[in-house]
Amino acid sequence: MNFVGSHILSVSQFDRDAVEQIFRVADRMAPYALKQRVTRVLEGAILGNMFFEPSTRTRVSFGCAFNLLGGEVRETTEIKASAIAKGESFYDTARVLSGYSDVIVMRHEREGSVAEFSEASRVPVLNGGDGANEHPSQALLDLYTIRKEMEAQGKDMEHLRIALIGDLKNGRAVHSLCKLLTLYSDVHFTLVSPTELRLPGDYIEQMRSAGHKVVETDQLLSSIAHADILYVTRTQEERFSDAAEAEKYKGLFRLNQSIYTEFCEPNTVIMHPLPRDSRAEASELDNDMNENPNLAIFRQTDNGVIIRMALFALILDIVDQVDQHAREVNWFTAKRF
Amino acid sequence: MNFVGSHILSVSQFDRDAVEQIFRVADRMAPYALKQRVTRVLEGAILGNMFFEPSTRTRVSFGCAFNLLGGEVRETTEIKASAIAKGESFYDTARVLSGYSDVIVMRHEREGSVAEFSEASRVPVLNGGDGANEHPSQALLDLYTIRKEMEAQGKDMEHLRIALIGDLKNGRAVHSLCKLLTLYSDVHFTLVSPTELRLPGDYIEQMRSAGHKVVETDQLLSSIAHADILYVTRTQEERFSDAAEAEKYKGLFRLNQSIYTEFCEPNTVIMHPLPRDSRAEASELDNDMNENPNLAIFRQTDNGVIIRMALFALILDIVDQVDQHAREVNWFTAKRF
Amino acid sequence: MNFVGSHILSVSQFDRDAVEQIFRVADRMAPYALKQRVTRVLEGAILGNMFFEPSTRTRVSFGCAFNLLGGEVRETTEIKASAIAKGESFYDTARVLSGYSDVIVMRHEREGSVAEFSEASRVPVLNGGDGANEHPSQALLDLYTIRKEMEAQGKDMEHLRIALIGDLKNGRAVHSLCKLLTLYSDVHFTLVSPTELRLPGDYIEQMRSAGHKVVETDQLLSSIAHADILYVTRTQEERFSDAAEAEKYKGLFRLNQSIYTEFCEPNTVIMHPLPRDSRAEASELDNDMNENPNLAIFRQTDNGVIIRMALFALILDIVDQVDQHAREVNWFTAKRF
Repeated sequence: MNFVGSHILSVSQFDRDAVEQIFRVADRMAPYALKQRVTRVLEGAILGNMFFEPSTRTRVSFGCAFNLLGGEVRETTEIKASAIAKGESFYDTARVLSGYSDVIVMRHEREGSVAEFSEASRVPVLNGGDGANEHPSQALLDLYTIRKEMEAQGKDMEHLRIALIGDLKNGRAVHSLCKLLTLYSDVHFTLVSPTELRLPGDYIEQMRSAGHKVVETDQLLSSIAHADILYVTRTQEERFSDAAEAEKYKGLFRLNQSIYTEFCEPNTVIMHPLPRDSRAEASELDNDMNENPNLAIFRQTDNGVIIRMALFALILDIVDQVDQHAREVNWFTAKRF
Repeated sequence: MNFVGSHILSVSQFDRDAVEQIFRVADRMAPYALKQRVTRVLEGAILGNMFFEPSTRTRVSFGCAFNLLGGEVRETTEIKASAIAKGESFYDTARVLSGYSDVIVMRHEREGSVAEFSEASRVPVLNGGDGANEHPSQALLDLYTIRKEMEAQGKDMEHLRIALIGDLKNGRAVHSLCKLLTLYSDVHFTLVSPTELRLPGDYIEQMRSAGHKVVETDQLLSSIAHADILYVTRTQEERFSDAAEAEKYKGLFRLNQSIYTEFCEPNTVIMHPLPRDSRAEASELDNDMNENPNLAIFRQTDNGVIIRMALFALILDIVDQVDQHAREVNWFTAKRF
Repeated sequence: MNFVGSHILSVSQFDRDAVEQIFRVADRMAPYALKQRVTRVLEGAILGNMFFEPSTRTRVSFGCAFNLLGGEVRETTEIKASAIAKGESFYDTARVLSGYSDVIVMRHEREGSVAEFSEASRVPVLNGGDGANEHPSQALLDLYTIRKEMEAQGKDMEHLRIALIGDLKNGRAVHSLCKLLTLYSDVHFTLVSPTELRLPGDYIEQMRSAGHKVVETDQLLSSIAHADILYVTRTQEERFSDAAEAEKYKGLFRLNQSIYTEFCEPNTVIMHPLPRDSRAEASELDNDMNENPNLAIFRQTDNGVIIRMALFALILDIVDQVDQHAREVNWFTAKRF
């Protein structure tokens, strides 16, 4: 896949080669994200970080990724300041904003909005999340984390055993990750959810028709015994029309250290797309696991910066220039882990 | 006019020489705005981009202009976070904020607020819009666009024929543009508006006493036949005390491709200060004109970055240094048009 | 005190040597803050400027300080955009955000929140204000201003005579400044407040047990005759549960030019942590003093940038590199005073 100048809207754009290409570039970005080196390759370039739906984590992650490459960031953090409120079409907004920057990241609550925006944009657009639809950089960072965690254990991605746990119906992170994993060989999926929050059937069909093994269940304890990865998710209450309905599912599946010790294989990796809901009534992933070295949730967000750097580098065609504009870090850097 | 260190508060500050001076500098900024070259002349300088009224377009445009010159941007996007809410005077706000940056752009909903702020500021202040009063960089980018569009057709600015269409009473962009055009020779103004939304009389008097021809009308079709420029505007509903009153005027004048083809001379340039209202009940400038090469509305916003770069360069006295700190662009740049 | 890599949470961390160390570094930062020179020492470093409570002044001041050292700033300006609203713990927020930047400044309305955040952060955290608790950079800039104002008059910090005026109960700036002044020798404190808004007793005990002289009074005019510094404060209405209660205290103590001329020694320095409340019913520090050369309130905010640069330089261990990455300023700079 030729990334140069292209929009990144959906994980469906990627075949396995494209994914591997992104991950090879990501590996080269890691020393910069980890503050071992500084590069100024994009000095003078501007990212338009257009978040028409509030976000701290994803917005700051994209912004930092661009800064780490040496570029500047201009930002919008809400929709009420925008001309859209005065009747402006997405077409106009896109034509105008794309005259201001070299690349745009966009988040908007409406499904399909980012794709519509990209059609009128004069510069490449990355989807930073369009409602319940897509959030491709999240799926890529999840998969990249799985690959690195497996590598660290001397395993590869073939025959991966993954249990996905929680609200599998509404979580776009889960949906996109399933799509990407489908590109690999012989994955064993265990889908643990309340009956009402099962993964939509078309995903399961795709996974099965690609030769993967899929088991659906509403039993947590019996499902986590033979997995390489436990991918725990939050009940996506903001996607329920009735808030009280969402409450019913909170706290149904809780993973904590004693369950982990009793039921899981050693070194089973724990992931979560974050935020995890740490309120007492939910607590799907207990804080007593924070010191467990197999808890990979903050390695996930760290990898997010690396993946986003890789996407920018590929789209703006500066992969091979990154190291040429590099130097040592000259300030105090904290040990990250 | 000596721009160095001066405030830019109103188009009334400019005579024709000053306008031409800004435009000559703007021409030199274009290669940087168009991503043909990068300059770092303002590396280390800081813009205080103080938007006490929400705005995406103007705020990002000013910020990008400063970034394109190599400077940094610190920003405020609303008034509720400000000390003004705790009883602080504009004098104090200006004294404090002007200690933080090299130059300030300010927008505020109250007329005259930016001028008041500038009196206490210790650094140059640019008016980014003060209520219904002034928005000088918008008027400059409109005039610059007219000049470039005419140039591209082998015409000059003398004997310009311009039709201004819509809510001419409330649009500050129209008011300021009329003031600037008055500096030129023998302009033919056709003012198309509902009777209740006519251009205020003092503007018309100024235009006539400077020797320009002014025709007022409420008939669209007969007014667009002999114009170089059609400048279409939105009904400024936010300036009406009664929202229902504003509704009456929406959609009264609609320009679309079939009207354009039937009534206009070939190559009549279409402009709009944006945002255009694309809701069905308004649609003063139909989306079916989006592919018309004479639609200059996105060239206007692109020119906005160039004009704002020119203002910063003049005020901060770095016009002749811009090219000395320049180099080639080393990343993928999209074709803009 | 070794600042490298440490959190700055409270003025209680500092002994007198530490304070003097910060001030020596601050003196070296002044030429950069005053735009006499530019340094790029932190080029490639990122500040996470995390303001979960609105602020313009402090937020922009920290951001500018980091920009003046050559670094980039990623920012959050409110809490509603944050994952905390979805049940995320401070621990998680801190783990995630500290993966994005080299240092974090945090403000949050809850007392103790910044310290809690810092425990989970993987990079140094500076307290930008946690409710009524601490705002250490404000206290440092106040003390630094006192030192510089005294120096300019040929005085030193010993035997300092300071009158603190207004709401001494609720002002965190006053509390922290008293703690820092307690480190010096033989300070004469005059505490002028309504009885209900007196400085909490434990502060007074600390001051007295360290050998300082403390006088409490509710009489303004007799209290300002023999002071080097008048430190005037605003009634902190946002800390009152009953707004009407706060109104009772507004305007009780008003300092203006005629009172100053009649009652104060020449060259008595006037300070205020800002914002001052300039509404007619409050006006604790009248605008008719704005031209008084002893009004140091805007020198205070200017010193804030210098102090924050010094803290960043110490924490990130680049004090001795600042001048190595320096050059002359090449753009117009306004005379600041």
